[in-house]
Amino acid sequence: MNKERIKKLLTDVKSGIIGIDEAMRVFKSFPYQDLDFAKIDTHRTLRKGFPEVILAKGKTREQIVKIIRSLSKEDEPIMVTKADREVYEAIRERQKDAVWYKTARVVLISSKKKNRKTNKVILVMSAGTADIPIAEEAVVTAEIMGNKVERLYDVGVAGVHRVLNNKDKLFGANVIIVVAGMEGALASIIGGLVDRPVIAVPTSVGYGSNFEGLSALLTMLNCCAPGVVVVNIDNGFGAGYFASIINQTNMK
Amino acid sequence: MNKERIKKLLTDVKSGIIGIDEAMRVFKSFPYQDLDFAKIDTHRTLRKGFPEVILAKGKTREQIVKIIRSLSKEDEPIMVTKADREVYEAIRERQKDAVWYKTARVVLISSKKKNRKTNKVILVMSAGTADIPIAEEAVVTAEIMGNKVERLYDVGVAGVHRVLNNKDKLFGANVIIVVAGMEGALASIIGGLVDRPVIAVPTSVGYGSNFEGLSALLTMLNCCAPGVVVVNIDNGFGAGYFASIINQTNMK
Amino acid sequence: MNKERIKKLLTDVKSGIIGIDEAMRVFKSFPYQDLDFAKIDTHRTLRKGFPEVILAKGKTREQIVKIIRSLSKEDEPIMVTKADREVYEAIRERQKDAVWYKTARVVLISSKKKNRKTNKVILVMSAGTADIPIAEEAVVTAEIMGNKVERLYDVGVAGVHRVLNNKDKLFGANVIIVVAGMEGALASIIGGLVDRPVIAVPTSVGYGSNFEGLSALLTMLNCCAPGVVVVNIDNGFGAGYFASIINQTNMK
Amino acid sequence: MNKERIKKLLTDVKSGIIGIDEAMRVFKSFPYQDLDFAKIDTHRTLRKGFPEVILAKGKTREQIVKIIRSLSKEDEPIMVTKADREVYEAIRERQKDAVWYKTARVVLISSKKKNRKTNKVILVMSAGTADIPIAEEAVVTAEIMGNKVERLYDVGVAGVHRVLNNKDKLFGANVIIVVAGMEGALASIIGGLVDRPVIAVPTSVGYGSNFEGLSALLTMLNCCAPGVVVVNIDNGFGAGYFASIINQTNMK
Amino acid sequence: MNKERIKKLLTDVKSGIIGIDEAMRVFKSFPYQDLDFAKIDTHRTLRKGFPEVILAKGKTREQIVKIIRSLSKEDEPIMVTKADREVYEAIRERQKDAVWYKTARVVLISSKKKNRKTNKVILVMSAGTADIPIAEEAVVTAEIMGNKVERLYDVGVAGVHRVLNNKDKLFGANVIIVVAGMEGALASIIGGLVDRPVIAVPTSVGYGSNFEGLSALLTMLNCCAPGVVVVNIDNGFGAGYFASIINQTNMK
Amino acid sequence: MNKERIKKLLTDVKSGIIGIDEAMRVFKSFPYQDLDFAKIDTHRTLRKGFPEVILAKGKTREQIVKIIRSLSKEDEPIMVTKADREVYEAIRERQKDAVWYKTARVVLISSKKKNRKTNKVILVMSAGTADIPIAEEAVVTAEIMGNKVERLYDVGVAGVHRVLNNKDKLFGANVIIVVAGMEGALASIIGGLVDRPVIAVPTSVGYGSNFEGLSALLTMLNCCAPGVVVVNIDNGFGAGYFASIINQTNMK
Amino acid sequence: MNKERIKKLLTDVKSGIIGIDEAMRVFKSFPYQDLDFAKIDTHRTLRKGFPEVILAKGKTREQIVKIIRSLSKEDEPIMVTKADREVYEAIRERQKDAVWYKTARVVLISSKKKNRKTNKVILVMSAGTADIPIAEEAVVTAEIMGNKVERLYDVGVAGVHRVLNNKDKLFGANVIIVVAGMEGALASIIGGLVDRPVIAVPTSVGYGSNFEGLSALLTMLNCCAPGVVVVNIDNGFGAGYFASIINQTNMK
Amino acid sequence: MNKERIKKLLTDVKSGIIGIDEAMRVFKSFPYQDLDFAKIDTHRTLRKGFPEVILAKGKTREQIVKIIRSLSKEDEPIMVTKADREVYEAIRERQKDAVWYKTARVVLISSKKKNRKTNKVILVMSAGTADIPIAEEAVVTAEIMGNKVERLYDVGVAGVHRVLNNKDKLFGANVIIVVAGMEGALASIIGGLVDRPVIAVPTSVGYGSNFEGLSALLTMLNCCAPGVVVVNIDNGFGAGYFASIINQTNMK
Repeated sequence: MNKERIKKLLTDVKSGIIGIDEAMRVFKSFPYQDLDFAKIDTHRTLRKGFPEVILAKGKTREQIVKIIRSLSKEDEPIMVTKADREVYEAIRERQKDAVWYKTARVVLISSKKKNRKTNKVILVMSAGTADIPIAEEAVVTAEIMGNKVERLYDVGVAGVHRVLNNKDKLFGANVIIVVAGMEGALASIIGGLVDRPVIAVPTSVGYGSNFEGLSALLTMLNCCAPGVVVVNIDNGFGAGYFASIINQTNMK
Repeated sequence: MNKERIKKLLTDVKSGIIGIDEAMRVFKSFPYQDLDFAKIDTHRTLRKGFPEVILAKGKTREQIVKIIRSLSKEDEPIMVTKADREVYEAIRERQKDAVWYKTARVVLISSKKKNRKTNKVILVMSAGTADIPIAEEAVVTAEIMGNKVERLYDVGVAGVHRVLNNKDKLFGANVIIVVAGMEGALASIIGGLVDRPVIAVPTSVGYGSNFEGLSALLTMLNCCAPGVVVVNIDNGFGAGYFASIINQTNMK
Repeated sequence: MNKERIKKLLTDVKSGIIGIDEAMRVFKSFPYQDLDFAKIDTHRTLRKGFPEVILAKGKTREQIVKIIRSLSKEDEPIMVTKADREVYEAIRERQKDAVWYKTARVVLISSKKKNRKTNKVILVMSAGTADIPIAEEAVVTAEIMGNKVERLYDVGVAGVHRVLNNKDKLFGANVIIVVAGMEGALASIIGGLVDRPVIAVPTSVGYGSNFEGLSALLTMLNCCAPGVVVVNIDNGFGAGYFASIINQTNMK
Repeated sequence: MNKERIKKLLTDVKSGIIGIDEAMRVFKSFPYQDLDFAKIDTHRTLRKGFPEVILAKGKTREQIVKIIRSLSKEDEPIMVTKADREVYEAIRERQKDAVWYKTARVVLISSKKKNRKTNKVILVMSAGTADIPIAEEAVVTAEIMGNKVERLYDVGVAGVHRVLNNKDKLFGANVIIVVAGMEGALASIIGGLVDRPVIAVPTSVGYGSNFEGLSALLTMLNCCAPGVVVVNIDNGFGAGYFASIINQTNMK
Repeated sequence: MNKERIKKLLTDVKSGIIGIDEAMRVFKSFPYQDLDFAKIDTHRTLRKGFPEVILAKGKTREQIVKIIRSLSKEDEPIMVTKADREVYEAIRERQKDAVWYKTARVVLISSKKKNRKTNKVILVMSAGTADIPIAEEAVVTAEIMGNKVERLYDVGVAGVHRVLNNKDKLFGANVIIVVAGMEGALASIIGGLVDRPVIAVPTSVGYGSNFEGLSALLTMLNCCAPGVVVVNIDNGFGAGYFASIINQTNMK
Repeated sequence: MNKERIKKLLTDVKSGIIGIDEAMRVFKSFPYQDLDFAKIDTHRTLRKGFPEVILAKGKTREQIVKIIRSLSKEDEPIMVTKADREVYEAIRERQKDAVWYKTARVVLISSKKKNRKTNKVILVMSAGTADIPIAEEAVVTAEIMGNKVERLYDVGVAGVHRVLNNKDKLFGANVIIVVAGMEGALASIIGGLVDRPVIAVPTSVGYGSNFEGLSALLTMLNCCAPGVVVVNIDNGFGAGYFASIINQTNMK
Repeated sequence: MNKERIKKLLTDVKSGIIGIDEAMRVFKSFPYQDLDFAKIDTHRTLRKGFPEVILAKGKTREQIVKIIRSLSKEDEPIMVTKADREVYEAIRERQKDAVWYKTARVVLISSKKKNRKTNKVILVMSAGTADIPIAEEAVVTAEIMGNKVERLYDVGVAGVHRVLNNKDKLFGANVIIVVAGMEGALASIIGGLVDRPVIAVPTSVGYGSNFEGLSALLTMLNCCAPGVVVVNIDNGFGAGYFASIINQTNMK
Repeated sequence: MNKERIKKLLTDVKSGIIGIDEAMRVFKSFPYQDLDFAKIDTHRTLRKGFPEVILAKGKTREQIVKIIRSLSKEDEPIMVTKADREVYEAIRERQKDAVWYKTARVVLISSKKKNRKTNKVILVMSAGTADIPIAEEAVVTAEIMGNKVERLYDVGVAGVHRVLNNKDKLFGANVIIVVAGMEGALASIIGGLVDRPVIAVPTSVGYGSNFEGLSALLTMLNCCAPGVVVVNIDNGFGAGYFASIINQTNMK
């Protein structure tokens, strides 16, 4: 399309339909539009069901509502992460169709029903009960993006046999997200058992020398089993998003 | 296979070929063999070209040579990472076919020629010249594992236009590895441009408040463009390995 | 028992009581049951008075109550740590027999009277008054687990002579727990005086360069007197639990 | 003036108007007055429109009001930074002309209209919406000090094409302030594009391994593009102030 | 003995053998001797085979040799930790009977054969090959102190099934020492499997965000399985010593 | 006194007033009493006007009141630091004579008027207005301990000429306490000007990379002017106490 | 020029001198060339005497020589920073005109004589003798870029009166670079005295809690005098470069 | 003297010996000379035996020798700290009278014999043998400055009874310096026993989580016994210097 646009311009110049000066004006801003185009190409993929995403943390409710309003003209699903009840209620005043995933702290505004795009499974595991909100953020993200998601929660070190009791889930998954706070060792254990990609999400769950998630973060970064990558502390969305990209690779 | 082995055992017990006590001895170690089997299943995938890997750092040359000797009976490629010249020479005394990738600091021992398993491309980018050894570690790893790899080096902030001059490489890649020290911003830039998975490798290149790679690590973990995950500082191998797993997904 | 179960299975196969296919089904899930069994064996020991433990921090009151309900079917004591008044009250609505150790912030739900299992003494020392809640967490844990516990509080550096005034307590203890915030030096002093195992608990008591307990933690880890080990900052429970294990060693 | 004062003193001594002892007393405190004079000389420049500045954080409302009262005798504009609504209202009770820049959290008390002193532009960019308060602190500071300021907000990594869509703003600026939280990579990108001085302001926006702005701070300090300097986390005022100094260099 | 000394003094005073003033002089220095006595009591236990221990690190060879000379008069075993070849050779020049445990970097000087004092087993596990020197430090310490020690090395995450293949060793041990660098997750895994005390030793093995052992240290401190305590990074001696104390509890 | 007690005991033994066994019992607990005596000797000095001190932070109001009650029997002044209004009011209910130094957050309970013990001056300087509470804590402490104290506040970098305008205060002081947050450079400046001991108190005043006082702390520890020592962040009491000790040296 | 090139292309298309397809090929790579052009515009300024800069640290000598060779075709000065004697000698083998600034550890390769472009002075101050290498790096950079540079060395806290003895230098400078290790307080002092822009360079000079320059870095970032900005630890080049940009502002 | 100089100037002006213009020239540089005077006044005290001090670390041997040469004209003792053998030998080539305190790593150049200025004792204690070099640095500093110094070494936690065996030394000291690495707890113990000022010197002795002295530093800063202040890690000189100042207070 872009190529064609350039061709048309050149043809129009050649044929005298537009003058050189006018063409000049078009070209002056061209490189950036072209880059923009590259982005749009990227965006086109996103449009196939990947929502626009707003991180609520650090933004005022006014800002969030305003961003949603400008985005919602594009008829795409919009996702708000780290959204507490107050954010949700501020959004709902304007967007009656907004849905709040309470545990995941995600608000979704979408006029369309979400479609499953692949039957390959993303398995989201949490080490403890307190890690569930971040795990749910990953689950909701991956589901909105069209994936089949399974949960395996509360299977940390003290209950690792529960992992083994669910070996079908474990070995049946195409991508695995491991959400763990405290010492974050679950990522190492899973990374040592499977040969599928593992995305580790450290959480800030814990106390003392956990230092707000630093402990789990370092554990996961230093994981000696290959096949494990890490996202930011408490970044369930990032894990869900990345898992979705690699889960839908080569789908066609 | 394992199933069949159990069946055979039970049949043999039933038919009296082996006694109950002998069967007992077999079963006593069985659960672990079974788990082992799960591992072996994992390993079977690995055997399709994924080498055994030894991290040279922290091991004596004697230990490395000894590990190689025990592994080499299995006729699989063996890969040694963070291997300097002295490690290489110690290995070569025994393994005449050992190859040293000098820049990548990788030794490979393999009786077989490596085969390309997919034509999808893993693009390995480095921000600076000093990051190249870690980038090469990723390249060599991914190539040994059967991937087609392309390089795009020295395209950091001061030369970001070089990225754009190579947009075909950038947009043609299936998986992208970004290797960067100092402030590590290249991962953010690439993460903002493409919709393919980006694996960010912080390096310890830099000085002062770089704090041995902490700066680049934190930058990459906090990347606000989604689709970026992180491995340990200087872990080129981990990035190459992870990239390979996701590059070969759904190959069949 | 497990051995016998395998033997029985084999015997039944041999004698035709159960078919090979049915035996196969049993064996398929066997490894995990077996591992589970190992856990259960562990648990059996625990059942002799060691409670199930729930860390309240990071869990919602709903989650805590739900976990208690599922656990309480097993007729075992249940212990909730880091439980403030609101957690206690939420529990008490369902569990009328719940007891709240206010200072220790522990809730105990137990239908049985706790029995002393050994007369060997665990001495719990605190450096300051502000460390008492964590010290009490250790005391309550150790008592619930069936130990005889003595307290020696507020014997920090400024009052170390009080330690010496209580030398009978000090030298009469089988295991010693030292709870200290600020600079945590009490662990070093006690570690230099006694030949019994010392479990050091750094607390987050202090201000400024205490950095939420980091100061005491590092002091205790670097203790040059041997015989001192460390648990996480504010982890009174962990210290009480560990002390109990080693206090009941060789009891039988 | 000061020179003249010394001369006068010496002349008076010579002529006997004042005695040596009295002159001694004057000289005893002289050096400091002279240094003071140096300060005043500095201040004279400041008086050309640079306000006195009070950091509200850490001060009680009483202290702030009292400082303002003593300063306001000098008929100079007074600026209060990090001023929330309560601070503003406490000030307003006394200073009816106080103006509150709500987003920037700045209170300005000035009897005079501010004059533009230069037409050269300071461009203030923010990576995200949540960075806007700090960006506005820089904007307000620079405007009060007599500069022409332009804004370019929300142009972080995910929307870097917006930068390019505003290349006129970017290349037309004399000084650029880049305000960014999370990974702070925008400073690197801008530093790689322009040849004008870039002042980078890390913000505490983000979560997890952002560690209250440490991530963005380190990124900016390690920026490999030259021409980038850094101020404290969230120090929009400092950036606006420094930008103003260099924007008004050689004005005359 | 001390008691008798006091008694004798009092008797001598009573009988007039020594005068009150002379007795006064004795008593003036008495309290400290008495405390010394307390130490000696401690030492008496130690003398039953526990060696005096010298940390070589930070001391000159001259200092080490001098300390050994003064200690060796007491006919007790002397142990030197973190002793490299040069330290060993300096010692051997004087102490022909000095033995160097090369991997453990321990020198032992002992005229006596060491006796096993208990048949209960201390199991020392290492996650990787590079952790073996610290593991050996623990082994040698525990053996010198009279314990039966078993080794289980190189059983980290990537080879956790090897743990299970050695379940007899694991479940047969009375005390377990887990030595692990990198992410240190092995401690969590073992802590979740057994009900015996686990002493975790983080090592400085690893690179990048391992930060010289910080990663493994934090993992182990935050271990969510109870029954795990921690010693300083690379402190194999401390672990062996503590394990010995609790392994010999209630021996009599 | 203690000496006399020993003498009396020995005399009584000699004269047969008490038996050897009874004397034995006394002596058994003696060393500790004697050490106690050493403490008491220390305390005797303290009693000359140095109050008992309670750190309110981390203690419940009940605990504080209880400690005061037990101490107040000794008719000594009692000082409570980091005491907010609620702590003060809880104390006042029982101790009608309690005085609250609001800014310093100190409560003093003393039946006696405090006496000046020396005319040598302790000068307390603060860099900023926000540092005043910690400076006042130092002032109140030093005054209660009998020193003459002068204040020189708000003389930080931006107003260092005010220091010079007060050179009489500066050069007239016997001991100087410098209280500063943010970058804490005032300690360096004063340390470079005077030859009297300087006690530097970093405060947690500041924001961003101040990291709760870490910045000022490191500055002060690294001060290249000799004659500067440091206490904990926000430890005004510690500085006042130490200044008092050295201000009253050689008084007699 | 670029505009003219586009115009020429369009005119050529219009006039049929080049065909549309050929024009297409030109435009396809155009946007990037255009961005490149933007860079070139930047570079054009640089060419007026600003050298290309290579950071030697982290690069092999081979790489450095190779980069120089490719750059040296452009007849521009080339600057290599952090270049020790070995780097210099490797360069000199090929580039006989290479000059080594030994203290500054800078190598300069330039066929032209450098011209002074402005008479405004950049003053480079160092706190201590050990900071001089970094200060010289700033001096050499600024001189190569065409500035008049003055030095004022060894004027730290212990010798701050030397600053005042050089007030002409201080108040005569247009831009000031302050290089300081240890506590870095000199930046605060200078920032409080002058109204010109101050660029602070923390150095890694110091020991102990200096933590490789962290102390000075934090001091400078938290400087409460406005008008101070900071570059990376030991980044003398960055300071010299930034100073040059702002020193040459409005020159024309 | 300075006063007299001013008086003379004024008198000369009055009497016409020097003209007003000439007096003006003198006064122009006067304030700084006066400040200098203040310094000189300070220095005068120093001259009574306090040496000029050069920190060798970070300086080249050439620089050190040059500084010594310029200082040595003033016939004052010169002290070089952190001076290894090479520094000493470089100095000795020029200064035949240079003395090297090998353990303390101090070089002293002094034409005069040092005189004891007070009989009050500074006690320097070290926790371990490896801390002795830093302790000796304090000893040598204090002795050169004219103090009577006593040593009490190797009295750490494991040998705290040795402290008590030396109570005369302990209670007889006027100022106490405590030098300790590892966990640094000795400062707390001594601070709790004595009422004299304690100057704590953390050392970098230790390993693992000692983090180059951070552990001991934090311990000492958080010391809950009042009367303890802290200097930089390994700063024996600073402690000796400060101790000397307060030991010689009120000497006259």
